[in-house]
Amino acid sequence: MTTFSGWAATVARGPLSPFTWEPRELAPFEVEIAISHCGICHSDLHLIDNGWNSSTYPFVPGHEIVGHVTAVGSAAGHLAVGQRVGVGWQRSACMTCELCLDRQDNLCPHQTATCVGHHGGFAARIRTDGRYAFAIPDELESAVAAPLLCGGATVYAPLRRYGVDATSSVGVIGIGGLGHIALLMLRAFGAEITALSSSESKRDEALAMGAHHFVSSRDARELHKQAGRFHLLLSTVHARLDWITLIKTLRPNGTLCLVGSPPGVMAIHAAALFQGQKTISASEIGDRATIAEMLRFSARHRIAPVVERMPLAEVNTAIERVRRNEARYRMVLDVDSQAIKAGG
Amino acid sequence: MTTFSGWAATVARGPLSPFTWEPRELAPFEVEIAISHCGICHSDLHLIDNGWNSSTYPFVPGHEIVGHVTAVGSAAGHLAVGQRVGVGWQRSACMTCELCLDRQDNLCPHQTATCVGHHGGFAARIRTDGRYAFAIPDELESAVAAPLLCGGATVYAPLRRYGVDATSSVGVIGIGGLGHIALLMLRAFGAEITALSSSESKRDEALAMGAHHFVSSRDARELHKQAGRFHLLLSTVHARLDWITLIKTLRPNGTLCLVGSPPGVMAIHAAALFQGQKTISASEIGDRATIAEMLRFSARHRIAPVVERMPLAEVNTAIERVRRNEARYRMVLDVDSQAIKAGG
Repeated sequence: MTTFSGWAATVARGPLSPFTWEPRELAPFEVEIAISHCGICHSDLHLIDNGWNSSTYPFVPGHEIVGHVTAVGSAAGHLAVGQRVGVGWQRSACMTCELCLDRQDNLCPHQTATCVGHHGGFAARIRTDGRYAFAIPDELESAVAAPLLCGGATVYAPLRRYGVDATSSVGVIGIGGLGHIALLMLRAFGAEITALSSSESKRDEALAMGAHHFVSSRDARELHKQAGRFHLLLSTVHARLDWITLIKTLRPNGTLCLVGSPPGVMAIHAAALFQGQKTISASEIGDRATIAEMLRFSARHRIAPVVERMPLAEVNTAIERVRRNEARYRMVLDVDSQAIKAGG
Repeated sequence: MTTFSGWAATVARGPLSPFTWEPRELAPFEVEIAISHCGICHSDLHLIDNGWNSSTYPFVPGHEIVGHVTAVGSAAGHLAVGQRVGVGWQRSACMTCELCLDRQDNLCPHQTATCVGHHGGFAARIRTDGRYAFAIPDELESAVAAPLLCGGATVYAPLRRYGVDATSSVGVIGIGGLGHIALLMLRAFGAEITALSSSESKRDEALAMGAHHFVSSRDARELHKQAGRFHLLLSTVHARLDWITLIKTLRPNGTLCLVGSPPGVMAIHAAALFQGQKTISASEIGDRATIAEMLRFSARHRIAPVVERMPLAEVNTAIERVRRNEARYRMVLDVDSQAIKAGG
């Protein structure tokens, strides 16, 4: 009998502890991956805390996975044993609905998620749908590639959807795990970049990562000075913000796109949308073609998320750093299969 | 001295009465138009009532104007005396800013409006910027063309912006002056059309104008049945609606576009936007190229707004019908220059 080992939460909001399980038989479309690295995303914390009432315990988080293929299902012949691949938030889609056929498989009503109802990437191995295991280009180091699979895809998709290029002025709200990757990508696109953050301490690093301007997102007077500035305003934060003022920072026909979800209700004046035909939207990860394109783009432009690495055995410490917003800028767990086996 | 005559409000919310004035000298880009017809738009009522605090009295409303050119300024040589033209909401733009150069002159920060700070079309003649006087194709009858200049342009622009075609499913909220034109245009585009109205009495007419489905916009259970249906939902009403439920009627990647402005604050849950990457936007009239295209489109597809005609001398009665939402579906004033002169 095969045994998999990892770290699991056993109750909502609890610490993670070593955990072993017997994986299901490898299905035709699945691959088995020996995990070398896994990023920690805010969604992992949300799932640990049962914030969406979807978690079942024991629960192994992790959906920014990089590793090597160790087994290939009978219908997953596009991947080979030994190949380096990455897996993000989405585990599978039906591949037959209108949305899947229309390159919107990230919106497939039958989609499943890597670590919802399945054990995720805080583990030595995973068996998952090979159609959502993406080849990692050689130029990308594994630890640095991991955050691209979810965080990178999430910010890249709206940049493409809204046609960002070297003539665009883009504001990024929140310079954290997602926001800092947005800065790096926007620099590669040649856009004029404004970082909007409540942490003055991030000013120098944001400028070093490509931002041309840094604006305090809590200073209403500073925000008002940005009126009419942005083609696209990408909000990566999960906080309530002054949406009325932020919408004013958009140029005519500009878009406020949410990739972080503010709690509760957003109070929007229709008049603020009419004045200059403004748009509000939201974006969810990316379809398969966009994720594959994002990885090629990241390889060619050497997009290297700034990561703090810790061994998987210190996952609880790593999670605490994310909870306290102390990570600069993405925590990535180094998975040493031998150590896990000894520990498990 | 030349004297112009029309009907003006002399105080906010007051009735209109005959009024004469001396027009300013014809400027280089201006044309003079002998008006034959003028539609009544809700914005006219709003301006009569000083709803935007922008009205000055005496105030001559009217911005859905059709007539014949009677004089051409020295720089308006693209138009000829005798030519039939139409004028809508926008009177002018700077023609030099980034937005004007980018076919977004309807968003020009220096734009002026036909009947804000100038006397509008409830009159025998008008002198106005010839660059916003559009040739009316021969196929369109003048009284029927008038509502196209503002109402028609307002609903046509978002249909084009969001790529409506014969594969689209579109919902139109509010079957009035704007909404009924949207139905006629959507039929020409070959879209699947759902009319959403609070007036059950409009069901048969909406179906006759091209709607395939009629849904009561006040019946939450009916609305819930439309979940995931519309690529585009065009809201033409100025009322508070159940936005949360309406957003659910959008398909993944669908857009709710406002062309009517609901009062106060719209309470939007970000989660409702994330679920299927929904978009909320607003649209303001249309740029010059879009208005000219809309007139050619309307000529070719015989888009004939349903109008109730009254002589200009009965303008107060006509306005009352609009205020009471009794017009089926757009009031158009017949302007008889001789009668005005006698009256004035």
